[in-house]
Amino acid sequence: MSFSAVDHEMMALALRLAARGLYSTSPNPRVGCVITRKDKVVAEGWHIRAGDGHAEVNALAQIASAEDCTIYVTLEPCSHLGRTPPCADKLIDANVARVVVAVEDPNPLVAGQGIARLREAGIQADVGLMAAQAVDLNKGFMRRINGGLPWLRLKSASSLDGRTAMASGESQWITGAAARQDVQHLRAQSCAIVSGVETILHDNALFTVRPESFASEQVNEYWRQPLRVIVDSALRTPVEAKLFGEGGEVIIATVVTDPERYKPLAAAGAIILSLDDDGNGRVSLPALMRYLADRGCNEVLLEAGPTLTGSALRAGLVDEWFVYMAPSLMGSSARPLVDWPMTKMAGQQALEIVDIRAVGKDWRIHCRLPTSAESA
Amino acid sequence: MSFSAVDHEMMALALRLAARGLYSTSPNPRVGCVITRKDKVVAEGWHIRAGDGHAEVNALAQIASAEDCTIYVTLEPCSHLGRTPPCADKLIDANVARVVVAVEDPNPLVAGQGIARLREAGIQADVGLMAAQAVDLNKGFMRRINGGLPWLRLKSASSLDGRTAMASGESQWITGAAARQDVQHLRAQSCAIVSGVETILHDNALFTVRPESFASEQVNEYWRQPLRVIVDSALRTPVEAKLFGEGGEVIIATVVTDPERYKPLAAAGAIILSLDDDGNGRVSLPALMRYLADRGCNEVLLEAGPTLTGSALRAGLVDEWFVYMAPSLMGSSARPLVDWPMTKMAGQQALEIVDIRAVGKDWRIHCRLPTSAESA
Repeated sequence: MSFSAVDHEMMALALRLAARGLYSTSPNPRVGCVITRKDKVVAEGWHIRAGDGHAEVNALAQIASAEDCTIYVTLEPCSHLGRTPPCADKLIDANVARVVVAVEDPNPLVAGQGIARLREAGIQADVGLMAAQAVDLNKGFMRRINGGLPWLRLKSASSLDGRTAMASGESQWITGAAARQDVQHLRAQSCAIVSGVETILHDNALFTVRPESFASEQVNEYWRQPLRVIVDSALRTPVEAKLFGEGGEVIIATVVTDPERYKPLAAAGAIILSLDDDGNGRVSLPALMRYLADRGCNEVLLEAGPTLTGSALRAGLVDEWFVYMAPSLMGSSARPLVDWPMTKMAGQQALEIVDIRAVGKDWRIHCRLPTSAESA
Repeated sequence: MSFSAVDHEMMALALRLAARGLYSTSPNPRVGCVITRKDKVVAEGWHIRAGDGHAEVNALAQIASAEDCTIYVTLEPCSHLGRTPPCADKLIDANVARVVVAVEDPNPLVAGQGIARLREAGIQADVGLMAAQAVDLNKGFMRRINGGLPWLRLKSASSLDGRTAMASGESQWITGAAARQDVQHLRAQSCAIVSGVETILHDNALFTVRPESFASEQVNEYWRQPLRVIVDSALRTPVEAKLFGEGGEVIIATVVTDPERYKPLAAAGAIILSLDDDGNGRVSLPALMRYLADRGCNEVLLEAGPTLTGSALRAGLVDEWFVYMAPSLMGSSARPLVDWPMTKMAGQQALEIVDIRAVGKDWRIHCRLPTSAESA
């Protein structure tokens, strides 16, 4: 299938519309739709949040008739009755002439059936335009549907010499205000933020999204506070921790099995999640990630110290990593970027550095793990 | 003084000519010269190496007469009789109309006297066009003349987590071929390369310039092998070390004072330099840098392990730092970027990151030390 310049322009617009749902559509994917008549845009739509209309429906609602129109949509129209009726049927009923789809929906309830249904109804359906960009926008959704795991991002703040805290634990602030603001966008995209109890004990961190620190054009009124997950194998989180006071739900993941011990934290507002031991008395991170995927988490952000960061890397769970590097030296007695002893050069963990950019006075190093594909 | 667009264009050309001497003019500065008549270039010249003609002389030699011409020169014409006669006098004798100078020569034998002499002779002399660029090209020369120290560059190779070798000392190769080729340009610009005896003992390193690895346009036939200096407080350098077999001169800097112990290394071809102790039984780096400046070294490159790198930073001797960062993790038991224990966030060493760029699969982080000015 070859696509025209107009096709590309329209799908690019549909992708920009889809991206408006970056902070709000989960557990659903971000989807955008453009309707054209004679190569002119007549309607635009995007999916805002689960339970509200799909992108195609929202676009169709803008116009009296879509007869003989072309529909550009970033994800295959659904063919199943979910919270809303199937979009493929709506397009058939609207007598559209052609549907251009960026990528098939991996959801086994759809998986090509939406496209098949359109074609059976005599509508031209062209698939694969700007598919890479469409997958990138929903890599968490794709990973969860295809692999049963969320897309896991790490966020670290380090000095040039790869240190994340002084030996005492002192670490505020390694990076500047611009870097912390940038992290807000990573948080807002995430269904869940995972950290360790040490961060709560040391910094009394909140892990909330603070929309006042978004650059204005990226705010939409539908952002939601991510779920917060504290890995706390021995239940050391204090009931007076600040994160119980504001933001989204809090899950405490533990290997403690005695429900009596859950009561104080449950009373403080936490959901206690009992998980398998990793063999060393600590919460199994793979089990936690599977749980989060089952709960509908597409993208998860891990903001933790070197121990949990190292465990996630060693378990092969990490898809990408944002290291905010400050222009400073914290010295050779400070804490490492990751707790992960290695002895041989041949045993190094390879990374792919996708991009490095200045963020205020700091630099953001964006890495991919070589084992991570866009969709598993 | 305001300069025209033509003035800028001509001085930019003169700066490019000057840069041809990047690998060859030391201990002299890099200087370029353009002669114009009615805003057209009629001659170009640059200083190739000490003892050969200065840039102005080389340009004047291209034409029968420079009468009524404008001379653009990146450094003030000399007014003293050195290895060659004073350039200011030659310009006066040539009856030029105007001399445009990027920056005054800080050499106390010149220091404005070249310009004064031109003006006394009735020649218009305009100073300060693209001065920052001219200083940048000769920051080592400026530092040495003004401050009695060389411009000291550090070069390090590290992983993303700031590690420079495994605990065993294994470090070959952290970075790839492109990064090692890039280092060749840092070496070629340097009057001296300093390293520690550990690097000789562990890697049997040569520290030579290998012009076959230059990008072709940067080679000129006048590059010279830098002096190599091994900091070897206890005289542990083996007489069979490979660096005695090729490349430039080798100096072994030591605190050993017994001349009997110098003999084997002197016989191997080394110059033994006895220097003050730093108070801990090791060579005083400030004393070494003053020695190198006295010897005419404008720019010095320190390629060493974390101990010597840390000592140079702590002594405040470092002007800039090139860290070649590999996209890998070497882990928390590997050696640090610098041996420099710190305990408080308030005690961090601030850096300024000037530029980060991809070099092959690696990334080159170019830092300045905040205390370093372009010219001291």
